[in-house]
Amino acid sequence: MEVLFGCELDVKAVLLLSGGLDSYTAGALAREQGYELYALTLSYGQVHDCERDAARQVACDLAVARHVELSVDLASLVNSSLTGSKVIPKDRVLDDHEIPTTYVPARNTVMLALALAWAEDLGAQSIFIGVNALDYSGYPDCRPQFIQAFERLAALGTRAGAGGGEFKILAPLIEMSKAAIIRCGISLGLDYSLTHSCYDPGTSGAPCGRCDSCQLRARGFTEAGIRDPLLG
Amino acid sequence: MEVLFGCELDVKAVLLLSGGLDSYTAGALAREQGYELYALTLSYGQVHDCERDAARQVACDLAVARHVELSVDLASLVNSSLTGSKVIPKDRVLDDHEIPTTYVPARNTVMLALALAWAEDLGAQSIFIGVNALDYSGYPDCRPQFIQAFERLAALGTRAGAGGGEFKILAPLIEMSKAAIIRCGISLGLDYSLTHSCYDPGTSGAPCGRCDSCQLRARGFTEAGIRDPLLG
Repeated sequence: MEVLFGCELDVKAVLLLSGGLDSYTAGALAREQGYELYALTLSYGQVHDCERDAARQVACDLAVARHVELSVDLASLVNSSLTGSKVIPKDRVLDDHEIPTTYVPARNTVMLALALAWAEDLGAQSIFIGVNALDYSGYPDCRPQFIQAFERLAALGTRAGAGGGEFKILAPLIEMSKAAIIRCGISLGLDYSLTHSCYDPGTSGAPCGRCDSCQLRARGFTEAGIRDPLLG
Repeated sequence: MEVLFGCELDVKAVLLLSGGLDSYTAGALAREQGYELYALTLSYGQVHDCERDAARQVACDLAVARHVELSVDLASLVNSSLTGSKVIPKDRVLDDHEIPTTYVPARNTVMLALALAWAEDLGAQSIFIGVNALDYSGYPDCRPQFIQAFERLAALGTRAGAGGGEFKILAPLIEMSKAAIIRCGISLGLDYSLTHSCYDPGTSGAPCGRCDSCQLRARGFTEAGIRDPLLG
């Protein structure tokens, strides 16, 4: 609830929720700020589709008002390690500023576009996304200038925007290290055993420990001095 | 084919193809300019889903290199006359600058986002969209400033853009009247009997003649002094 000139307003926000630890933490921060959350999870043909199960658990833990799972077959349009048409790189040297084959063209543009559609329909002006431009894989659609450009687009491409309204694309983790994100989440009482990060889990769902996502997660927990509950 | 410094280059473009007369004409103009077309049709839960059949016929007539049909259930996120949750307005006074209930929140943002994903994967730098900001229903995501904002977003949110490349969102009809669009298409030899425009066709697929889309189409053919082949 937000108090504005003495009136209490329900403040709705759409949360892009993947089931990873970043979007979980972004959602928890939004909840802390009093937003009523509407969580959107996209199945786009990713090979690590088990993150959907994690998204359901995380949505439940965040007590979202509604959780919608949508499917769009991006795998029929694009080639990426994450959509099964390229090998998932392992033991890569992080921080080399090369965009890896796990990049999925325009994925965040597609996700934000769908979140925008829902936000406008809900009358929500805020969209939360857990992108991070520090401990990340170098994807261009995780950078602050991309987020700002989407905000501008959202104002121009909607009924609300045409009427003078605006949409805020809130990326509270964008300049945080993975360790800082984890510390923040732990301080909020989050249970990271609910999350899934690995791009190439075995049939048991166990993390491979060698893909970018596993490496970034491991480095974050190590730097935070916290044990990853997924590792038993 | 484009001749550049003596080298012939195949120039690919993604075409957003609805099955209406605007996207057909935009595609024909792109083809005239030598583009090899990759047509993308989105089923988003629209009630007038028969436009998909028209899109297939139009794609065939345009001899596109590939036609992909994608589904995304926007109807589960938004309320609109076009997704069945509101009545389709009939006999509305056009040109009253009110955004009607047929507006689908962020539809063009979603479509352009998907087109961008495909374009980047194909190595295409051009996306054609048949939006029109003159004889239209006042949708905010048909305006030139929206198209420009998407171009900027595309440059920032992609691997190609991060490498200094750019994407052009080409909307060749944006400032044309419906009559001018129709005259242009006829001069290019287009067969508008292949297209579908009506928002509320009967079970036979026959146009209702009273929705915005039928009215705009009828006015265009009348002003162009050409008989609409759909009307027999």
